[in-house]
Amino acid sequence: MFSAQTYQQRRSKLLENVESGLLLFLGNIENPINFEHNTYAFRQDSTFLYYFGIKEPNLAAIIDVDNQRTIVFGNELNIDQIVWMGRQETLREKCDKAGVVDCQPFSALGDYLDKAALSGQRVHYLPPYQSFNKILLSDLLHTPIAKLTASVPFIKAVVAQRAIKEEQEIVQIEEALRISVDMHLLAMKISKPGMKEMEVANAIRHLAADQAAPLAYPPIVTIRGEILHNSYQFNTLKEGDMLLNDSGAETSMGYAGDLTRTFPVGRRFSNKQREIYDVVLKSFTDARALLRPGISFKEVHIQACESLVAGLVDLGLMKGDPKEAVRQHAHTLFFQCGLGHMMGLDVHDMEDLGEQYVGYTDDEPKDTQTFGLKSLRLGRKLETGFVVTVEPGVYIIPELIDRWQAENKLADFINYDQVNAYRDFGGIRIEDNFLITESDYRLLGPELAKTADDIEKLRLAYVL
Amino acid sequence: MFSAQTYQQRRSKLLENVESGLLLFLGNIENPINFEHNTYAFRQDSTFLYYFGIKEPNLAAIIDVDNQRTIVFGNELNIDQIVWMGRQETLREKCDKAGVVDCQPFSALGDYLDKAALSGQRVHYLPPYQSFNKILLSDLLHTPIAKLTASVPFIKAVVAQRAIKEEQEIVQIEEALRISVDMHLLAMKISKPGMKEMEVANAIRHLAADQAAPLAYPPIVTIRGEILHNSYQFNTLKEGDMLLNDSGAETSMGYAGDLTRTFPVGRRFSNKQREIYDVVLKSFTDARALLRPGISFKEVHIQACESLVAGLVDLGLMKGDPKEAVRQHAHTLFFQCGLGHMMGLDVHDMEDLGEQYVGYTDDEPKDTQTFGLKSLRLGRKLETGFVVTVEPGVYIIPELIDRWQAENKLADFINYDQVNAYRDFGGIRIEDNFLITESDYRLLGPELAKTADDIEKLRLAYVL
Repeated sequence: MFSAQTYQQRRSKLLENVESGLLLFLGNIENPINFEHNTYAFRQDSTFLYYFGIKEPNLAAIIDVDNQRTIVFGNELNIDQIVWMGRQETLREKCDKAGVVDCQPFSALGDYLDKAALSGQRVHYLPPYQSFNKILLSDLLHTPIAKLTASVPFIKAVVAQRAIKEEQEIVQIEEALRISVDMHLLAMKISKPGMKEMEVANAIRHLAADQAAPLAYPPIVTIRGEILHNSYQFNTLKEGDMLLNDSGAETSMGYAGDLTRTFPVGRRFSNKQREIYDVVLKSFTDARALLRPGISFKEVHIQACESLVAGLVDLGLMKGDPKEAVRQHAHTLFFQCGLGHMMGLDVHDMEDLGEQYVGYTDDEPKDTQTFGLKSLRLGRKLETGFVVTVEPGVYIIPELIDRWQAENKLADFINYDQVNAYRDFGGIRIEDNFLITESDYRLLGPELAKTADDIEKLRLAYVL
Repeated sequence: MFSAQTYQQRRSKLLENVESGLLLFLGNIENPINFEHNTYAFRQDSTFLYYFGIKEPNLAAIIDVDNQRTIVFGNELNIDQIVWMGRQETLREKCDKAGVVDCQPFSALGDYLDKAALSGQRVHYLPPYQSFNKILLSDLLHTPIAKLTASVPFIKAVVAQRAIKEEQEIVQIEEALRISVDMHLLAMKISKPGMKEMEVANAIRHLAADQAAPLAYPPIVTIRGEILHNSYQFNTLKEGDMLLNDSGAETSMGYAGDLTRTFPVGRRFSNKQREIYDVVLKSFTDARALLRPGISFKEVHIQACESLVAGLVDLGLMKGDPKEAVRQHAHTLFFQCGLGHMMGLDVHDMEDLGEQYVGYTDDEPKDTQTFGLKSLRLGRKLETGFVVTVEPGVYIIPELIDRWQAENKLADFINYDQVNAYRDFGGIRIEDNFLITESDYRLLGPELAKTADDIEKLRLAYVL
């Protein structure tokens, strides 16, 4: 945990941004696997972590804005639980560390909310993403689940605060990235023809776990890098394949790292692979160079797309004017998703609070219709203190090519014959994480080999 | 998956045991970690697996008893999902493998149930343990969550069938145990003073994962073996400690293994440790010798407790008549839980269906009040084809000793002075899995060192 003062200050600041009412925070529970008491590893809700820091299931808290009270609700262990789980820090001790004086049994929460409702207080809550908490909220507020409505002022206040990272949060993210970089180096070290993708994924998970770090998200470790969220890991690595590794660790305090590298399973990229790799890398460095306070991330995304298209035109896969091609979304045959997203306590930071509030503004809302842009999680102007990922890629998806070609879609920009010669190419993504500084940006975490040359050097040193 | 015929036969047999109405099966979803799209590893519901074998999220099925129809409800991937997740086997193909002809979009489920209700059919469903499915059931059946009532006839029919394992299920359980035994051997091989518990747990998880096997439950790997469900793994192993390893793998088809061994962190048990170890082992072998069709598992549990007490009397920790001591529950100062449970597709098989129905009968209901017995998950008469765990232990819990001693509880049976000399002893558990055969029992999986001598031999061979 951070200091008690940290949590007190965060809560005070939040109070400044909400005028009245009562703020309700629900912690997470232990999710069942195949029956109630066989549970997944517990992960606290990130907003609860941010304001209270307590990593235990079955907690809730309120900040009563009108009456200036902060209360954590939870239960102390009874003797049966001590027999089963051992003596642990009491809730009282945990609350002390969070700078919370008032802690009450969980059963008192309902009464407190009922009284608030009677006195006409508005109860603000965030969008529940755990089904358990949907049911709990519905019970607490005597409101059908379908009628639950999260508080926009509360969401906006939390987003405004969590979006700007504190110094000590940056330290945490860099710690996550230190472990993440080690994971990527290990993958580059052990991968070789004959291994299964799964073995590489298991090895990097093991490395993180030995540092008490879970992975921040299910790792994508695949020779079919064109599949954006590929969870299938039973393929066998072959000479000539590229392995795409999108994985990152999470610190014990909950902060994420999110890195992607794509490297040859053999010693070297093929010429074809290296050509596309360099196109993606150029798009990456072009985008990175734009990062600074005040520029909109949508603009960075668009320029990264134009860079990609320019490269693909040089290779003969596309044709025409890159600006016009991107304006007509022709690049989405190769790059179907967004350039990046915020990162912090969540790998897609605050995604539970709603992309519209996290990545966009009321004046510039998200485009939820257009293929490509609807997957751009972040579009708004960057500010000092934001942490973002930059992750362009080229993904050759046969199903998508066939669909487009069948309707001769955007044929002014696509050389379908040439594209079909790449049908089995796969995919390449390169991803790093950046802090937006007062002037421009700073790479977070240790440098990790990124040029084709540097990656081949590592592979040559490792692979027999 | 097993053959389509297997699933068809299981469903036919189920039909024989339910007179009328409509049986509703809900599959599991992907549970969120910290936001909706960051999810834990998917685990299908075990009953859904048993009758349909399809390991995909967001499915449901019905068996319409009155109209002799079986339908699986689910959605095929659209192009957006193919872009994100890659082309996969279609739902149609999966249904073929499950021997199901009729598959319909998920959205058709509600209508089907509404029509059934209109025609007066009873909709039978099992107790939902996933909050998501509680909400879904509530929506589908237009019933508040608090009023949802699982069908006892459906529960009983499923329990009757799943309790008796098929040959091919035994093969699966033995496969899970083959991996589990390797996990235990690895733990005995690598554990040494200076390591963290977590490192041992990570290594065994890695071994299983490389065989595409998740763990059947969060492993208990601890030098504080007296804590029955200890998830804390940050202690450092020291010479003189014992390490308790309760862990088991799950096959890709979902079948569990569940083994416990306790071994010295150094080369040898201390005399004190070996004395208690032998008491637990004697209780284990005494219990095992009783396993046969017709004996109630509660009786086996009681005799295992008497064996434990006799051993503890010999060591001076207890006194008096073992039978009477157990009758008065004096053994629960040392053995607070039950002797074992059923195992199969769940490590505590069918626990979601209710212990009363799985482990007990209407005539001999579970004792839900008495400390010790209330943690005995299985009490009923054993039948040929049951798979059970046997897992006696001795757990020295200082908090419990202090409570009992303060009220001089059962002082006729407890030598408190002597017990206090063992305050820091820790805990020992020994656990194997058995099939109840027509005559008695068969150990499942490979033999794994169990006597103190055999364990020391392994440790001597491994530890420097």
